[in-house]
Amino acid sequence: MLPPDFAAQLHQLFPSQRIYTDPVECYTYAYDNSRKIFPPEAVVFPLTAKEVQSVVLLCNANQIPLTPRGRGTGTSGGSLPEKGGVALSLERMTQIINVDSANRVVVAEPGVLNLEIQNAVKPHGLFWPPDPSSAAFSSIGGNLATSAGGPHAVKYGTTRDHVLGLRAVTGAGEVIKTGCYTTKGVVGYDLTRLLIGSEGTLAIITEATLKLTPLPEMQGGLIAHYRDTNSCAHAIVAIMGMPKGPSALEFLDAGSLNLIRSHFPDLLPADSQALLMIEVDGSQSEISETINTLLAVCHNSGLLHTEHVTIPENLWKARKALSPLLRDIAPKKINEDVVVPINVLPQFLDELAKLTGYYQIANVNFGHAGNGNIHVNLLINPDDTEQIYRAEKCLNEIFDLVIKLNGTLSGEHGIGSEKRAYVSKEIDPTTLTLMKKIKRLFDPNDILNPGKLFP
Amino acid sequence: MLPPDFAAQLHQLFPSQRIYTDPVECYTYAYDNSRKIFPPEAVVFPLTAKEVQSVVLLCNANQIPLTPRGRGTGTSGGSLPEKGGVALSLERMTQIINVDSANRVVVAEPGVLNLEIQNAVKPHGLFWPPDPSSAAFSSIGGNLATSAGGPHAVKYGTTRDHVLGLRAVTGAGEVIKTGCYTTKGVVGYDLTRLLIGSEGTLAIITEATLKLTPLPEMQGGLIAHYRDTNSCAHAIVAIMGMPKGPSALEFLDAGSLNLIRSHFPDLLPADSQALLMIEVDGSQSEISETINTLLAVCHNSGLLHTEHVTIPENLWKARKALSPLLRDIAPKKINEDVVVPINVLPQFLDELAKLTGYYQIANVNFGHAGNGNIHVNLLINPDDTEQIYRAEKCLNEIFDLVIKLNGTLSGEHGIGSEKRAYVSKEIDPTTLTLMKKIKRLFDPNDILNPGKLFP
Repeated sequence: MLPPDFAAQLHQLFPSQRIYTDPVECYTYAYDNSRKIFPPEAVVFPLTAKEVQSVVLLCNANQIPLTPRGRGTGTSGGSLPEKGGVALSLERMTQIINVDSANRVVVAEPGVLNLEIQNAVKPHGLFWPPDPSSAAFSSIGGNLATSAGGPHAVKYGTTRDHVLGLRAVTGAGEVIKTGCYTTKGVVGYDLTRLLIGSEGTLAIITEATLKLTPLPEMQGGLIAHYRDTNSCAHAIVAIMGMPKGPSALEFLDAGSLNLIRSHFPDLLPADSQALLMIEVDGSQSEISETINTLLAVCHNSGLLHTEHVTIPENLWKARKALSPLLRDIAPKKINEDVVVPINVLPQFLDELAKLTGYYQIANVNFGHAGNGNIHVNLLINPDDTEQIYRAEKCLNEIFDLVIKLNGTLSGEHGIGSEKRAYVSKEIDPTTLTLMKKIKRLFDPNDILNPGKLFP
Repeated sequence: MLPPDFAAQLHQLFPSQRIYTDPVECYTYAYDNSRKIFPPEAVVFPLTAKEVQSVVLLCNANQIPLTPRGRGTGTSGGSLPEKGGVALSLERMTQIINVDSANRVVVAEPGVLNLEIQNAVKPHGLFWPPDPSSAAFSSIGGNLATSAGGPHAVKYGTTRDHVLGLRAVTGAGEVIKTGCYTTKGVVGYDLTRLLIGSEGTLAIITEATLKLTPLPEMQGGLIAHYRDTNSCAHAIVAIMGMPKGPSALEFLDAGSLNLIRSHFPDLLPADSQALLMIEVDGSQSEISETINTLLAVCHNSGLLHTEHVTIPENLWKARKALSPLLRDIAPKKINEDVVVPINVLPQFLDELAKLTGYYQIANVNFGHAGNGNIHVNLLINPDDTEQIYRAEKCLNEIFDLVIKLNGTLSGEHGIGSEKRAYVSKEIDPTTLTLMKKIKRLFDPNDILNPGKLFP
């Protein structure tokens, strides 16, 4: 329960249609795509940076937890109000403040959806490269909080590569402005990227200056089927060794393909045990040239057949069919997004198969192979405690394997609450302590998204 | 003078050939390309991270200033031992630890020269994109400390876009490891980019994991001459509005061209008052296609003539001729590297001419036009105090103009000591205070490059 005094003051800050305290209403802000449930005691919907600041100041003065939230599409529990308190939903800060096509910049509030940015800048021949699969539903603020990636990161990089500056309110209620408006700038410390990926634990972003990229003329690509994962993984290494690479390189393993087959029997050839979706963008001639090179390169003894696809939608058909099926197949799945260096992908996938075999955990693996970023999905029955125990043992060994191979635990989902127990596998105690001190500097009373990100 | 006890302990840490305390020897480490002179009381040359840590711990315990230093090519005074103490030269940490061509990664110590990195990775068809004009002499550590750019930043970005991870020793003597080895990674705060551009005020980088890029097949380009700066500036805006842009876009104003003419009378047409050097890279067909587009786009009423250049060296002839001449022309020049948004470049250059006219300060302006990054050089006679007074008034107004136009004070040189008086024009007090707190967190006794970067 919120202290009555605090609740009264909170009500004074927001008109009734922009504050929820009824538990039934609050419940709709209790979860994200991690499917855990932690109801906040209040939800507020600020419209301005000033309102954000006022609620931060109030929570800070009263040491009440404050969990900022975009659209709740995150899978790591980053926006769960784990410790109760106030959920601060940025979903109503939806102004696109400025589309500056001459400088390839868009300035937006955090509640604008990724897709809305794309729609606003497309008429100018521009796009914002980060493209999480949630792009139609996830907000820019959430994308920034996690440094969201997506399939096109292999060519265009992730969120942190496409932001010029931010305005934000720290956990102490201070309004800061980071970065600049130009494509070059080295004045002061890079607080922009310190905030990007900090999962709402340092400050609440109230405005972002995003760098845009010219839209490629067109896309084309290849679908390549392999008789086994290993030959497919070797093709990934070969493809990523080419000077002109793909704009997306998605891998689907046998588990993924079987899942698709079970719902769309005609979408895939019966013999395929691993699939590569290779997208290329540019001019017609560039695409042809690159596809010819990649066609040669993806050819190895395990290749079954390739399909040259000219309509981008057809290229993505299998990949797009997969996501909703994954939600249905298991009452619960452990959904990871580990990354390993490209050249050890064959070894990683091989050892992953051995581990899941040893622990007898059904699994479906796919992802952004060009970055070595694999979504490992362990499928479990939440009522089977023995199976859950095995899955957790297995996951622990998968993470150890990733670290052994010089990889990282998360490529785009972030730590949130789901992965914090494993952070110490990757970050040494000294560096972790320094990060915690930075957290305290921005948020001295630990009110912003408390407990997240750190073990 | 160093306290005798401290000096004795410092001597114990380093063998005699790796420590200087003789003032004559120390004097060679008293300056950088800012041409100011501040002799340190000792210079040490560590070979390992452990040695770096030991000298930091010793300086921290005794509160002795410690100024890390690459190769002293910086122009902002960032490596000047302004407060005496110890200069820590990283020039002997020159190991390239690993060239990993399959993953397009090179791991190097900070003393490796930028050019040495290029030479090591070129046989693999790769390069490291940051290309300050000092590349043959400047070290990776210095490039990281300033987030160095260069002419190819217009296509490839600056240092902060090409680093995966770092090892460093903080001002408290703590050894930290930031980032990861893969192209994606969101575990923990982005300390990598917090250190990049921090000018040695937070930590001393002892190892860097650099992300490489495939070498373009070839380069070609155009030289375009204009009858005045304004029409040239409008051509820059038009060129940067094209979806396929240049790999470098260098601008030289009338002052620059006259300087070149005075030494190389035949290099430039007599009527040219502004020059654009437009480099394009890629395959032969891409280059032809892009050059044709840019040729059309750079055509306006002020265009005098264009030259299609196929040999890259010829493209850069005028630009390369300029740099050494600038060093000679004035006993002292005030050398800035302001940035403005592309679309206001015509206005900026116009108002710059008015300001320098009003204050009667000779000036030579050129630079990385594609980023809106202009090297403004005010030429002054250091014996003429009245002229210096006018130049400083003029500079102050130039900075105000840059900020008014939503630009930044420095695109690549950094703040160091030269520009710290102006930082408050760009960064608000709250954000600046937060940056200072971060400084204190990494360096509680303010021993690392004290006094730099902040006003």
